[in-house]
Amino acid sequence: METLVSAPAFDRRAFRSALGSFATGVTVITTRAADGSPIGLTANSFNSVSLDPPLVLWGLAKNARSMPVFAEAEHWAVHVLSAEQEALSNAFAKSGEDKFSGVELETGHADLPLLTGCAARFQCKTRFCYEGGDHIIFVGEVIEFDRRDATPLVFHAGRYALAASKDAGRAPGGSARLAGSFDDDHLGYLLGRAHFQFYAPIRAAVREQGLDDAEYFALLTLTIRGRAGAAELARLNALTDCLLSEARLDSLVLRGLLTVDEEDGERRYALTARGSDVALRLIAVAKAREADLLQSFGDTDALALKTLLHRLSGLAGPHPDLWQPDGSLTAC
Amino acid sequence: METLVSAPAFDRRAFRSALGSFATGVTVITTRAADGSPIGLTANSFNSVSLDPPLVLWGLAKNARSMPVFAEAEHWAVHVLSAEQEALSNAFAKSGEDKFSGVELETGHADLPLLTGCAARFQCKTRFCYEGGDHIIFVGEVIEFDRRDATPLVFHAGRYALAASKDAGRAPGGSARLAGSFDDDHLGYLLGRAHFQFYAPIRAAVREQGLDDAEYFALLTLTIRGRAGAAELARLNALTDCLLSEARLDSLVLRGLLTVDEEDGERRYALTARGSDVALRLIAVAKAREADLLQSFGDTDALALKTLLHRLSGLAGPHPDLWQPDGSLTAC
Repeated sequence: METLVSAPAFDRRAFRSALGSFATGVTVITTRAADGSPIGLTANSFNSVSLDPPLVLWGLAKNARSMPVFAEAEHWAVHVLSAEQEALSNAFAKSGEDKFSGVELETGHADLPLLTGCAARFQCKTRFCYEGGDHIIFVGEVIEFDRRDATPLVFHAGRYALAASKDAGRAPGGSARLAGSFDDDHLGYLLGRAHFQFYAPIRAAVREQGLDDAEYFALLTLTIRGRAGAAELARLNALTDCLLSEARLDSLVLRGLLTVDEEDGERRYALTARGSDVALRLIAVAKAREADLLQSFGDTDALALKTLLHRLSGLAGPHPDLWQPDGSLTAC
Repeated sequence: METLVSAPAFDRRAFRSALGSFATGVTVITTRAADGSPIGLTANSFNSVSLDPPLVLWGLAKNARSMPVFAEAEHWAVHVLSAEQEALSNAFAKSGEDKFSGVELETGHADLPLLTGCAARFQCKTRFCYEGGDHIIFVGEVIEFDRRDATPLVFHAGRYALAASKDAGRAPGGSARLAGSFDDDHLGYLLGRAHFQFYAPIRAAVREQGLDDAEYFALLTLTIRGRAGAAELARLNALTDCLLSEARLDSLVLRGLLTVDEEDGERRYALTARGSDVALRLIAVAKAREADLLQSFGDTDALALKTLLHRLSGLAGPHPDLWQPDGSLTAC
């Protein structure tokens, strides 16, 4: 015989976790209280309901502090947050009086407080309030809406996430697995290939300046560090295995790209005006290469890729940090 | 005076597009018709409603073919799809008779047809059917559920997507922008750093075998191609700029790693048993490096990163395809 699972026997944590496997966007819902003060809260229970008439819904806990206000409110606004609005999501997820302090507001229908910079906004008029267990389901008719291209804020498994393209045409692992070799789904191969492809036109520009990779890396490092000896340059570029001896650095001095002085018996190098000019030209090529690729790649995937590469870098072992004053190893 | 926007004046396409900016997971909802046949459809209008009692909801168009069945059904099951189940999502999004053909099924409460391999499943008993414009909102009490760790299938802006970690601790662009240089949010820098970090322990193993990068790449290429001349090896590794002359390949012959024969006047190289053994050891190091990193990185981010790198690679210009019989350039 079938019995409904009663609340105490039901593992609530496991249920929450199972619900969390359904990814959602994140919204902030706002309205105005009878006393005129703006009210808002974070919700991921938003969803579309109907196209004709245009209806959307979201759920609010019956014991929520703002329930009396929303129960009375004729209008409310749903703000679909962008990836840059994580702080806003956190601020409106807390219970507190001053959620709106410092938040830029616009005014909508029926004096609705509207947040700015969102992926989409829906101004709604309450149509139905439905019983939903410990929640009330608010269904609203959309009176007005707007949207802009934005990278969405995603919520999954209790954490914020980013959306990344899922290329239906190319399933990872698509090339046949080779028993005696690797395949084109090996992460090392993919990273190397992407690096070398990205770098190819930059390398061509580097060669045009009569430089090899090691010399290019040394010039780059000096644009950040200002002045450094051969040992420090070698340490900062150790991962590339593209290292320059003092003799090779001295040849860059002879070519007018570097100056050298001695301090405490160590030869220290810096860019000449010409060296700086060459470095800036090559950096401009690298920046143009990035801009060019990211234009077709799109902001959403660019943010996801960069974030994942930062994360991988933090796991892949310490790396010299060019931007730290002492160039110390950073484990992220 | 405020007026509700009537359907004809309402730009439905723009409204859909605005709704699409809210990311969702993807579910397949199933039930059994009175005649015993399984019924199912894809929906992204699922959401949680209540913890106590445990309630979830989803919406179905009033004119949907399956509406009569769901209107009568006492039970239905919600399947939250994983990233590997895109084909299932597509199959159940079409109208047709044979959606279930070839689909592995389990049997749940009240003979519910349950799909396998999902991120989560909720078996529900209908509690409320609410009016929702051109849709009916079904609210069900969850009788039983299960979940497994799985990479979620995400739907955003009308397309499938993957979820990627959003590391709150490290906002891209975190290092100060340097006017006269690049910073650690430059994609080229991030790709290079990740590549070199990934490769560092592999390079150490390569050096232990007395090999340099170019020699390693040549051995790797020969594990895939079997036999190749210097020109073909150079073409396949052109992006790395790590190229071997015939003289250097001949030195690998002298070291017992390669054999050489001549065909049509061209010297063609292949791995000896020892060369093959060395290559396989190094490939094992590379595979262990990947396994080790991905264990902490996690399956969800691994899939997102690999997919993004494949996509970037397709945009970054043609690259030699080691796995194509003719090694032709691939533009993905």
